[in-house]
Amino acid sequence: MLKNDLILRAAKNQVVERTPVWMMRQAGRILPEYRTVRAKMGDFISLVKTPEFACEVTIQPVDILGVDAAIIFSDILVIPEAMGLPYKMIESKGPWFEKTIQTKEDLNSIHIAHLQNYQYVIDAIKLTKKELNNRVPLIGFAGAPFTILAYMVEGSGSKTFSKAKKWMFTQKHEAHQLLELITLSTINYLKDQIKAGADMVQLFDSWAGILSPQHYEEFALFYIQKICKAIKDEFPETPITVFAKGAFFARENMGKLSCDAIGLDWNMDIKESRALIGNNKTLQGNLDPCILYSDNKTIVAETEKMLLDFGPKGHIANLGHGIYPDVEKEKAKLFIDSVKNYKHKV
Amino acid sequence: MLKNDLILRAAKNQVVERTPVWMMRQAGRILPEYRTVRAKMGDFISLVKTPEFACEVTIQPVDILGVDAAIIFSDILVIPEAMGLPYKMIESKGPWFEKTIQTKEDLNSIHIAHLQNYQYVIDAIKLTKKELNNRVPLIGFAGAPFTILAYMVEGSGSKTFSKAKKWMFTQKHEAHQLLELITLSTINYLKDQIKAGADMVQLFDSWAGILSPQHYEEFALFYIQKICKAIKDEFPETPITVFAKGAFFARENMGKLSCDAIGLDWNMDIKESRALIGNNKTLQGNLDPCILYSDNKTIVAETEKMLLDFGPKGHIANLGHGIYPDVEKEKAKLFIDSVKNYKHKV
Repeated sequence: MLKNDLILRAAKNQVVERTPVWMMRQAGRILPEYRTVRAKMGDFISLVKTPEFACEVTIQPVDILGVDAAIIFSDILVIPEAMGLPYKMIESKGPWFEKTIQTKEDLNSIHIAHLQNYQYVIDAIKLTKKELNNRVPLIGFAGAPFTILAYMVEGSGSKTFSKAKKWMFTQKHEAHQLLELITLSTINYLKDQIKAGADMVQLFDSWAGILSPQHYEEFALFYIQKICKAIKDEFPETPITVFAKGAFFARENMGKLSCDAIGLDWNMDIKESRALIGNNKTLQGNLDPCILYSDNKTIVAETEKMLLDFGPKGHIANLGHGIYPDVEKEKAKLFIDSVKNYKHKV
Repeated sequence: MLKNDLILRAAKNQVVERTPVWMMRQAGRILPEYRTVRAKMGDFISLVKTPEFACEVTIQPVDILGVDAAIIFSDILVIPEAMGLPYKMIESKGPWFEKTIQTKEDLNSIHIAHLQNYQYVIDAIKLTKKELNNRVPLIGFAGAPFTILAYMVEGSGSKTFSKAKKWMFTQKHEAHQLLELITLSTINYLKDQIKAGADMVQLFDSWAGILSPQHYEEFALFYIQKICKAIKDEFPETPITVFAKGAFFARENMGKLSCDAIGLDWNMDIKESRALIGNNKTLQGNLDPCILYSDNKTIVAETEKMLLDFGPKGHIANLGHGIYPDVEKEKAKLFIDSVKNYKHKV
């Protein structure tokens, strides 16, 4: 049915004609076309909550950059809000929660998220699937439980998330209760995304890198595996990608997750990562997003070097993090084209 | 001469009676006694620039916490200022540079730092050595060249330092010129610190973790090695520690540096790090600073687990990053005492 299903086949570790490519944050400020829609809507959260606009900006990079997949325009903080903890997005500062989770009472005041709590995302997915008209697959996503807890407790972004970690380390029992609530919410959320048409889903553990290896096992990986298993039980054919930024120390254990692909950031050596994760998983990534500030020759050379290191099978090309908003559209397109034009020697 | 030279002997990988311990940022906001001095001075930079006050807060943790070394109270951004790029410390925001390095002209407007540009640090070291009266060694320090470049170009702290990286990747020649200027300034600076009495020096590469392994080699490690060699040539007996936060990928290469000790953050597995770095270097670290928010039992248990993993030789106990300012003084002391009371089974 899909005209281009390269990414789905690559995620399943199948032999593909060429390496598929997309970019985290491809629907966003790098595109002047996005900034126009955004200016109309006023604020980021309204854009996320209006299916027609979310659909429009989701499809823009498919039309403009020629990526091999669309990813629904949304935010990982949909889940805290759907659980009863609303947030604001403060310009040039980031997310901010008026209420945070600190006490047992706070925990009792939130709930497991269900369809009615995030209906607008599901509507956006349905609309986007229709408008995409099977040109490329649509990726759904959610934040991983530890990263979501970090925001719900800290109440904003942070370099260290020390308030969130303090809470986790002193209120261990409550921390696990909260992680469980987030996990169950995320399972509902991703299943509903798949039912609505998402062809593939990704978990973003953006703050994985602030935990020690032991704490990452206990507070993060355990819940990620729970989500992966629940999704696989109901949708064994839908590929799942787990991207835990900074969790270099967990690569070996991530090789055992019930998922299809593992995202790598640009700190992680490609061959070492392959050796640690094993041959059963597809790897996604991992160009340093700052390479896209370089001259054209460097962008092509670095992209080709990356493709060579990953090899022709079990790789989805991407950056090692979301594209930075001030990268020129032409440079982003050059990265996409460099992947699409590359021929692996076999 | 020194009554307690444990840390110097441990840095040289000698057998010691017990593992020495200190904490990065031990002279600072965790101590009410520091906050009193700070309130008198008004701002952070004035405190750094007034030798009597810098001396007083440097010695506080020796008296109050019983650490095995003092570290001169100062700031890594002394060097940019000494090179001609002054900064302000903005409360709850961090450092801010009015002028940054962007062009060839900007590069020409700065200079290699010499004694007269950072005399106040040298005076503070001399005074502190006198006041310490040989109770414990005094550690001097500087930022590593890449981290200093990052601030000089970005102009402030940042999660990604994408402006600094953009400049480095597009103005490669100028970037290496700037790194060279910083390197030569840092060599002067550390040599003058040692001449003034610093018993040991540490290089802090706080933003190492934002570079890819290849770029870290090119833009960071090369200059660190240059500094280490220059110091060792003149002061072969003075131990040098290199702490590159987040540079897990460089551990093997860091084992080859002309330094004595390598700092580890809490993401880095102890035994894996030892295997990568080899047996010739002392390792420093690496307790998660957030562990000090835990109950007393957990602090003792986690500290002892760390000591067991490092073993009795070639280890300087520390946190994996600077202590967070809201940690209770008693918890910090418990960490120090737990190390001092621990007996390695031999």
